[in-house]
Amino acid sequence: MDRRSFLKNTTLGGGAAAATALAAPAYAQGARTLTMVTTWGRGLAGVFDAAQRVADSINAMSDGSLTIDVKGAGELVGAFEVFDAVTAGQADLYHAADYYFVGQHPAYAFFTCVPMGMTAQELVNWYYHDGGADFHDELGQIFGLKSFLAGNTGAQAGGWFAKEINSAADFNGLKFRMPGLGGKALGKLGASIQNLPGAEVYQALSSGAIDGTEWIGPWADEKMGFQEITKVYYTAGFHEPGAGLAVGMNREVFESLTPAQQKIVDIACSEAHQWNLAQFLANNGAALDRLRAGGVKTLEFPNDVWDAFARATQEVHDENMGDDLYKRVYDSYNASMKSSSAWIKMSDGAYTAQRDRTQA
Amino acid sequence: MDRRSFLKNTTLGGGAAAATALAAPAYAQGARTLTMVTTWGRGLAGVFDAAQRVADSINAMSDGSLTIDVKGAGELVGAFEVFDAVTAGQADLYHAADYYFVGQHPAYAFFTCVPMGMTAQELVNWYYHDGGADFHDELGQIFGLKSFLAGNTGAQAGGWFAKEINSAADFNGLKFRMPGLGGKALGKLGASIQNLPGAEVYQALSSGAIDGTEWIGPWADEKMGFQEITKVYYTAGFHEPGAGLAVGMNREVFESLTPAQQKIVDIACSEAHQWNLAQFLANNGAALDRLRAGGVKTLEFPNDVWDAFARATQEVHDENMGDDLYKRVYDSYNASMKSSSAWIKMSDGAYTAQRDRTQA
Repeated sequence: MDRRSFLKNTTLGGGAAAATALAAPAYAQGARTLTMVTTWGRGLAGVFDAAQRVADSINAMSDGSLTIDVKGAGELVGAFEVFDAVTAGQADLYHAADYYFVGQHPAYAFFTCVPMGMTAQELVNWYYHDGGADFHDELGQIFGLKSFLAGNTGAQAGGWFAKEINSAADFNGLKFRMPGLGGKALGKLGASIQNLPGAEVYQALSSGAIDGTEWIGPWADEKMGFQEITKVYYTAGFHEPGAGLAVGMNREVFESLTPAQQKIVDIACSEAHQWNLAQFLANNGAALDRLRAGGVKTLEFPNDVWDAFARATQEVHDENMGDDLYKRVYDSYNASMKSSSAWIKMSDGAYTAQRDRTQA
Repeated sequence: MDRRSFLKNTTLGGGAAAATALAAPAYAQGARTLTMVTTWGRGLAGVFDAAQRVADSINAMSDGSLTIDVKGAGELVGAFEVFDAVTAGQADLYHAADYYFVGQHPAYAFFTCVPMGMTAQELVNWYYHDGGADFHDELGQIFGLKSFLAGNTGAQAGGWFAKEINSAADFNGLKFRMPGLGGKALGKLGASIQNLPGAEVYQALSSGAIDGTEWIGPWADEKMGFQEITKVYYTAGFHEPGAGLAVGMNREVFESLTPAQQKIVDIACSEAHQWNLAQFLANNGAALDRLRAGGVKTLEFPNDVWDAFARATQEVHDENMGDDLYKRVYDSYNASMKSSSAWIKMSDGAYTAQRDRTQA
């Protein structure tokens, strides 16, 4: 299949031309529209915003030479079909959480997050300065993709449950929505795991098809409306301590871009990571206050449940270690996390503890 | 003075033209070189890198239509002269820590950091999603600048001392290097504060002109060589819990750019914030290990010293509250910090505590 046959070449007029006497207009010759498919229902709070942020930045910076046309889940292909659509050339790029594609390769989990793994800050430390991006690229090459980190939800909430969790045994037989390796770990505790796309979760929880779900955190969860169904909300979770979102671009399409356009895509994705993480974190506090005011009860898992999460997570990793690339990513990821987290605990951690103590 | 007379207009050939049959080359007509002055000695670890990152991104994304020429401190103007150089049009933009300019307006402190204030993550939450950038712009307009966050050191170390600090009284008479409001707060404890640019700190500490200094954190401090002079190193500090770096561009110059070029500058600066913060945090852990292996003793300030830091910080804020803009920024900043930090503590904080506990 000639992937380039999907490119839509258009010629724009001088609409992008410049404004002032001093300006140096870049003329958009052979302007291209690239189709971005996403795993997100159109308008889904935070996650769809990240995809739109990437598109808006590319569109504006490329001065009309590139236009990213963003499709919600189901508009061109279904949520979980975006990976195959881009590798096959049916679309030019996707915006997704790469752990949806652990079936394609289990190491994709590391580029969203793994249970008991990195926070968002630790992830960017590794990704941009300690080898992470190179592994993402190595994975992408297997499938004909060029991959970029392009959003982050921050540490996700433990989720919404019909009943309180008092021991690890309470997960036995529980029908729960959780993607990625976190879901596989909960499966080790006997849960029946479903990997539903965002747009289908409310209905599943509402109908009783699932007993509980994690989604993201107070702000995005409130917009999903889960508080209308249950009031039992666990705040800290083990499964997604800083979930990165990603762009995967068809590699032939990426290589057909000019060097300036390639850099624009690269920087737009990276900037969207920071912008999106800050979006979630700036909104979660007020949303949590509203949820509590509406009767939601916030809880933390007891220590022995966390112990069970940690053991189950290690079992899942161990099952994947036979894959050479998975093991290399795992080793790099863990070494970086250990080094990053040691200083963060001594600096940010010690500082915020003193700030909270003196301002109490 | 006609600020535009400082613009260097050049015409580049087709060197930036594109690579492949599918490419849409942007022709650099009337390409411009903009001079960036910095408060950093050329090559100063992390901070100069942030300035260079901004320049490299702009140069590459603009496809030759803009070239940012980065000057180290002293190459065109002195470190602390960059603000006046840009407002006067002698240079086009600066890269600096805006708290160097609290003499121009005390509210500049908030766009680097204030003692007992925001971490780097809390700062971006506020800046991009809770009103911070608008205040930065309001400040910039007073001086004819367009301002952008464009780097971050993360939470800074308490610093290097000739002797251990056992009580707040030990700061009385101490000759210490600390810029911004942190320095003013230490002054309340009787310290004699000097605001030296980075390139001059080693010599001052080595000669005994100062008794101690903070700089950044293990990685950047190690490169400065302070461990050759003293072995007493305080890790968590009160003074710079997440020091943002900034670009200030002459506003007439910014307004003379095309919309695409303006967006390129904006996104390049924002991306450099994340990239630079991750650079510091990815390197601090290993650097701290090396410092300790070389005999450096790491310490934490006792609680009553932190109490004194907190009281002195509030005194400094109170002195500035007569300024309307300062007070409005202070109120916005504190409300955002309170909201941001509450959720971060419940999610990242509770999660990392459990991760550390189960992996111990």
